[in-house]
Amino acid sequence: MDIAAEGALLSRHQIEAAHDRVRGAAHRTPVMTSSTFDRLCGAEVHFKCENLQRVGAFKIRGAVNTVNQLDADELARGVVTHSSGNHAQALCLAARLVGCRATIVMPKTASAVKLEAVRGYGGEVVKCEPRLESRMRTVEEIVRATDAVLVHPYDDLRVIAGQATAAKELIEDVARLDLILVPIGGGGLASGTTLAALHFSPTTAVVAVEPAGADDAYRSLAADSIQPSIAPKSVADGLLSRLGEHPFAILRNRLKEIVLVDDDAIVAAMRWMWERMKIVVEPSAAVPVAAVMDGRIDVTGRRVGIILTGGNVDLSRLPWNRSPGTGDHLH
Amino acid sequence: MDIAAEGALLSRHQIEAAHDRVRGAAHRTPVMTSSTFDRLCGAEVHFKCENLQRVGAFKIRGAVNTVNQLDADELARGVVTHSSGNHAQALCLAARLVGCRATIVMPKTASAVKLEAVRGYGGEVVKCEPRLESRMRTVEEIVRATDAVLVHPYDDLRVIAGQATAAKELIEDVARLDLILVPIGGGGLASGTTLAALHFSPTTAVVAVEPAGADDAYRSLAADSIQPSIAPKSVADGLLSRLGEHPFAILRNRLKEIVLVDDDAIVAAMRWMWERMKIVVEPSAAVPVAAVMDGRIDVTGRRVGIILTGGNVDLSRLPWNRSPGTGDHLH
Repeated sequence: MDIAAEGALLSRHQIEAAHDRVRGAAHRTPVMTSSTFDRLCGAEVHFKCENLQRVGAFKIRGAVNTVNQLDADELARGVVTHSSGNHAQALCLAARLVGCRATIVMPKTASAVKLEAVRGYGGEVVKCEPRLESRMRTVEEIVRATDAVLVHPYDDLRVIAGQATAAKELIEDVARLDLILVPIGGGGLASGTTLAALHFSPTTAVVAVEPAGADDAYRSLAADSIQPSIAPKSVADGLLSRLGEHPFAILRNRLKEIVLVDDDAIVAAMRWMWERMKIVVEPSAAVPVAAVMDGRIDVTGRRVGIILTGGNVDLSRLPWNRSPGTGDHLH
Repeated sequence: MDIAAEGALLSRHQIEAAHDRVRGAAHRTPVMTSSTFDRLCGAEVHFKCENLQRVGAFKIRGAVNTVNQLDADELARGVVTHSSGNHAQALCLAARLVGCRATIVMPKTASAVKLEAVRGYGGEVVKCEPRLESRMRTVEEIVRATDAVLVHPYDDLRVIAGQATAAKELIEDVARLDLILVPIGGGGLASGTTLAALHFSPTTAVVAVEPAGADDAYRSLAADSIQPSIAPKSVADGLLSRLGEHPFAILRNRLKEIVLVDDDAIVAAMRWMWERMKIVVEPSAAVPVAAVMDGRIDVTGRRVGIILTGGNVDLSRLPWNRSPGTGDHLH
């Protein structure tokens, strides 16, 4: 099989090397099952618990794999990114682990919880206006002023190779998966997962699930070109990013399909996981679970892996304590 | 060592036999650690996750061990109890697993969530007035009418032997524990844990932690006689029961000490577990965690086990979304 011709942009060796880098810094997270969930959906589902990962999300994998490939000169200059979410915290921790400075550009509207999280991992916060253009401009100014290395949250093959290690571990722990389900936002995890399946379990199909209110990846794959993401809205606030170019190049050849779910289904799935499985997952992590519970994917009789991407939630603002369907989910 | 003379009321063999009965019906729950928690308290803490147990609590162990010792005649008559909490659900499931009827006497004020949980496990609910005397009288009437077997939530050596298997597993998984911390209410888990330590890890001390607003076990051990529990109040609603006679007889010889914590510390510990460890624990399960976080037990440099007893919580009524210190925690 000529993988290059088929559009794979990372080799088996590159993902193995990423795993060697990630291993020392990230947990090998457990895989959980629920006989109740299996009974509900008529399948055998294995949950890869990246909500139990360091910084509470799989993002530490991509950040570590990237930071650990920087040379001494780059490390001395420090890293910068423009995420206010899990990637920010992950980059701060990854940088701290190698003794490198991290600067995070965050909208001045970001919650105190997120600010504190970044600072708790030793990151330096630079605030900007809450618009994408302001964030990008601020990052550019920082790069110009300090020569810091930009680590993009997903549009970077080193990040994608890192994220691929979650599925690699799942595949190692659970043989003969028919299907792996992942949420999709910028596409870093989804593309990494397709490559992990390609190299380590070629008979396993990968399906991505996207919030209906932020369906640019769905539209992009349908149109076979990256489509704009205009005013995306979803309770799954980790999945509002626009699909990246590297992820798109990988996914268009590798992904089985993208399935959409609405916010009510996401909130119901999230609540179910908390109530019945007793684990804290964030709305984005509940997205593929929602697709199964809502019957959007037929998993009957199949052996399924789901990557539970993260568990970072503001416990004072839980979606089921707010009015459904009003947009009040959003923050 | 003459164990009988020292007050042990269950032999090593009895706990091993209980474990054989429990094994088929209950999960062997995982043991989790948190490097952040360890750093915070300067100890090495191993959390036995009974919140991930079937029915969401360790109570399935005692229920299974009891029901599985009933003879054919008793099984035909069915079981009954007067708990509205985790023991009720546990007994219903344990009964269903052996094809036996379970009747649960619940105060008519019990929440719909609790009613549904019991019915979901196939139990039959009989409502009574929300007073202890009404509950006891209703149970007696059922026993008279149907000859059903009363399975007490904690004042029964079969139940205690079952609960002991949680600590037995923890001891098997984590060698050389200096200390095991458990919450105490009626004393079933606490007494079982002291016996598991005695038989399987005699150098491990057991400390019980009790809510300050429901401190009858603390007072009972201090007075060396069972003291009344008058209008107990705590967010830890699983620990409001009066100390049982069998547990008392075991604990007075075996327990290192009882430590008290207040509700604010319990809620803070519970929230910390959700936010940082990403697992759902109920207030009662957070009680020993609170004792460590609040500095009520010096664990510095020690190897500590904590049994996280359960994870059944009404997600619409979380304690940090209600006003603290007003009694509004109570339900």
